[in-house]
Amino acid sequence: MATPLTATALDALFAALRQIVGADHLLSDHATLAAYARSTAARPTLPCAVVRPGSHQEVVALMQAARQFKIPVYPLSTGKNWGYGDACAVQAGQLIVELARMRRIVHVDPELAYAVIEPGVTQQQLADHLHAQGYPLWMDCTGAGPDTSLMGNILERGFGHSPYGNRLAHVSGMQIVLADGTVLHTGFGHYPNARTTHLFPYGVGPFIDGLFTQSNLGIVTQIGLWLMPKSEALNHFLCQVAQHEDIGPVVDALRPLRLDGTLRSILHIGNDLRVLSGGQVFPREAAGGASCLPDALRQQLRARAGGAAWVVSGALYGSRAQVAAARAAVRKALAPTAAKPRFLDERKLRVGSWLARVLGNSASGQRLQAQVALGSALFAMNRGMPNGRFLAGAYWRRRGGLPPAFPQRANPAQDNCGLLWVSPILPMRGAEMLALHALVAPLFQQYGFDLFVTFSMINERTLGGVITIAFDQDDPAEVARAQACYQALFDCVMRAGYIPYRVGNQSMAQLDPHGDVYWQTVARIKQALDPDMLIAPGRYQPGA
Amino acid sequence: MATPLTATALDALFAALRQIVGADHLLSDHATLAAYARSTAARPTLPCAVVRPGSHQEVVALMQAARQFKIPVYPLSTGKNWGYGDACAVQAGQLIVELARMRRIVHVDPELAYAVIEPGVTQQQLADHLHAQGYPLWMDCTGAGPDTSLMGNILERGFGHSPYGNRLAHVSGMQIVLADGTVLHTGFGHYPNARTTHLFPYGVGPFIDGLFTQSNLGIVTQIGLWLMPKSEALNHFLCQVAQHEDIGPVVDALRPLRLDGTLRSILHIGNDLRVLSGGQVFPREAAGGASCLPDALRQQLRARAGGAAWVVSGALYGSRAQVAAARAAVRKALAPTAAKPRFLDERKLRVGSWLARVLGNSASGQRLQAQVALGSALFAMNRGMPNGRFLAGAYWRRRGGLPPAFPQRANPAQDNCGLLWVSPILPMRGAEMLALHALVAPLFQQYGFDLFVTFSMINERTLGGVITIAFDQDDPAEVARAQACYQALFDCVMRAGYIPYRVGNQSMAQLDPHGDVYWQTVARIKQALDPDMLIAPGRYQPGA
Repeated sequence: MATPLTATALDALFAALRQIVGADHLLSDHATLAAYARSTAARPTLPCAVVRPGSHQEVVALMQAARQFKIPVYPLSTGKNWGYGDACAVQAGQLIVELARMRRIVHVDPELAYAVIEPGVTQQQLADHLHAQGYPLWMDCTGAGPDTSLMGNILERGFGHSPYGNRLAHVSGMQIVLADGTVLHTGFGHYPNARTTHLFPYGVGPFIDGLFTQSNLGIVTQIGLWLMPKSEALNHFLCQVAQHEDIGPVVDALRPLRLDGTLRSILHIGNDLRVLSGGQVFPREAAGGASCLPDALRQQLRARAGGAAWVVSGALYGSRAQVAAARAAVRKALAPTAAKPRFLDERKLRVGSWLARVLGNSASGQRLQAQVALGSALFAMNRGMPNGRFLAGAYWRRRGGLPPAFPQRANPAQDNCGLLWVSPILPMRGAEMLALHALVAPLFQQYGFDLFVTFSMINERTLGGVITIAFDQDDPAEVARAQACYQALFDCVMRAGYIPYRVGNQSMAQLDPHGDVYWQTVARIKQALDPDMLIAPGRYQPGA
Repeated sequence: MATPLTATALDALFAALRQIVGADHLLSDHATLAAYARSTAARPTLPCAVVRPGSHQEVVALMQAARQFKIPVYPLSTGKNWGYGDACAVQAGQLIVELARMRRIVHVDPELAYAVIEPGVTQQQLADHLHAQGYPLWMDCTGAGPDTSLMGNILERGFGHSPYGNRLAHVSGMQIVLADGTVLHTGFGHYPNARTTHLFPYGVGPFIDGLFTQSNLGIVTQIGLWLMPKSEALNHFLCQVAQHEDIGPVVDALRPLRLDGTLRSILHIGNDLRVLSGGQVFPREAAGGASCLPDALRQQLRARAGGAAWVVSGALYGSRAQVAAARAAVRKALAPTAAKPRFLDERKLRVGSWLARVLGNSASGQRLQAQVALGSALFAMNRGMPNGRFLAGAYWRRRGGLPPAFPQRANPAQDNCGLLWVSPILPMRGAEMLALHALVAPLFQQYGFDLFVTFSMINERTLGGVITIAFDQDDPAEVARAQACYQALFDCVMRAGYIPYRVGNQSMAQLDPHGDVYWQTVARIKQALDPDMLIAPGRYQPGA
């Protein structure tokens, strides 16, 4: 924990910070601090202040001030780390350094397909820029919404939806402010005139970029991000799997296609509730006081949504010939399974859209309209155009339901959603997916929550599970139950060896139950680079 | 430099080492040490001894002994780092720890397509194992020959020929002995029962694997290596480009196919001498005393080999439909250029082989035989079966020519070949490739060497150049000239911003001309993990 500064020291610190960023960009009123403390995890940590530098140089100056005043800083990009801590530091009393004003798209090279961006650049902003400039490039996009920072997600090692969905693998050349205020350029970037800083990540000598992801070792102020050439053809495919157990063979049937590169992007496998929660919030009245869906109601809602226990969703990219070949390969692989793929292309979407208009406000017209809207949003995502609608699940237990203008400006933390994620990685085998599901489902029953889960083929050999606990932040008993459920889940996946690839603030201290050499090594590196523990103490630092 | 131990201390050290590995595996006789000191760079560094542990546990014990005796150790896998230092430490007097006896293939998972290997596992060994077990998997293979270590190459960030050619990007989960003898497991490997250590490299927390590549921060004793599912179809394509300048547009025409994933493997572009040197050594008599090929002779040899200034070579992997689509895409892209691709498949190779037998020892029969042999070796390489013939270039200036049994047991260091490599990375643009060529060609003329060069599309956005200086180690004047030529070349590419991705021992001290923050950071990490500077001092450590 940061030792609180005396009032005098705090005044002097604030004066120094104002000197650096201007008075407008130092925020310390209680309302602002309380807003930053809001957390989907119901684990608020109140910062001592929020400072909003407008440039790399100001970040350098801020670190020098932080060092002088021995005040720990907590860097944020846009602070929209939903379900994993939002804008909250792991410990209270830290100085939030919000980098959202640093939103320069420094450079785009349309020929070699990359952009150089600052931390504040949002998904929407880069997508719009590429579109406005007419570049033949798509960026990778996550479902976290248009206003989220690309860099923030990348540094937390998030995954998107496209062939560039393994985002960290598509980064080259970082600019980093270290705790002592010195500026580190990685890759070849530290050589004057280097011509391939953003083209070849490794540089020469130890490859250190990974150190600055899921860590507190430096403040990254610029990265090179590879972009994808627009693909000639794009298909989206969806399959419904009616029975729970039948998803196992589907995973095994698709694995070879992911392994051999036929499926170049990240496939998502979501359960019924992931689909249902996109269209509605928890039906409190129909549920008659239960905190999760009674079985009969769930079956009824599921039936109305198409009847599937699981939905598999993914995109096919490439030339027309490549996409046709991939379509044939998917069909062939799935033929012996319970999944029958439907392929969506833009022609079908246009026809559907026309038909929906013709059918108008009839029941079938409305159903088709909803399907077309979903299809369009999926297609847009595949092309790197973000959409807030995929955040709807976070609002499942929110008493107010979805805000009026949703999905515009969707912000689950400010909207007081209760959301906790457990994200275990598992081998890409149907049996393991079912085994993990069987481990966690009873915990949800026990604690009285609906089990939302997706499994994504995040690389060629693993599934990344995202298990959601959605809860009502306005109900203290439910909050306590959600946190207990989370802890039971976390312990369960750790024990079973399905370790999460990313954790929320509430789990940082539990990442090193055995005092192992990995975490000792990380601690030695932290000590070497930040001996005063100035940057984000406690963040991926179990011993802090 | 290591301070030499006193004779008494050395005796005690040797006794301790014998205790650990057994007397047979501590070598300190002069002949052995001299053999290890041999270097293709003509830069011998004599070790104090060579110790050959047989297991991970012995490596741990060795590090404890090294710490006790304050003796710097130089870990090797098989010590076949041709052209970049071979088996030589950067500084003399270090204790070589050769890991070649640790050659267990610990595990292969045919379904999830990976192997867990020790440092001594050679390319041939793993290829043979996969073949013998009938696994439907191919490994990635380099041209460095069958007896080279997979891990050694990977830790130096080498590149192979297949879709898995970016080797470091296909590693997951390392086991590392640190300088203090503790054992670090990366990724998820430090959690008991972790189920995805070798499937998901990042783990949770800072991703530190890159630290242990091109570095001296630990001794890696085990890695998980991803393997490629055998592909249904495989084509090799070759194009000749007659005129030097015409290669620029060919690079630009192929770039979009590499960027969009149509070309999934690493394309190689070699100049005439790269091709010629595969079939012969320097024709001393015909050259009439010149140290490099006179123009007329070079044109004559080039004409005999097909007349091309450049040859582009690459493989197409995938299903039959995918390979057909890729073939069409390559043809279409190259149509406006001077390159006309020829596609080789196994049917053509069989026909060629049959025809060559029919033609027998006639001139055309011999020519065809040579072509078939080359084609077969290329196909084998694409499938991960290594071949020593691609080392022939190293023997270009060797007075004895190729050894009798070549390519069996090809060992350029022990065969006294003179070989220096400069390996700049450049943006994947035809104009930059020609510009770099124009920068370095005059240096070769000035110093009197033939310019061998390949440019490989090592990732989607860069070319990796390998510029070879082949020289006669038996001629001291030529050695001096080669080293001066190397220095001029190295300075030239550094100045121009085409930084090498990997360097030989002779350049380690020159990697930090400006005392920059990157190298300061690496030094701080070294100090934190190895304060006694026990592991490979000087290796990617410019300040040592």
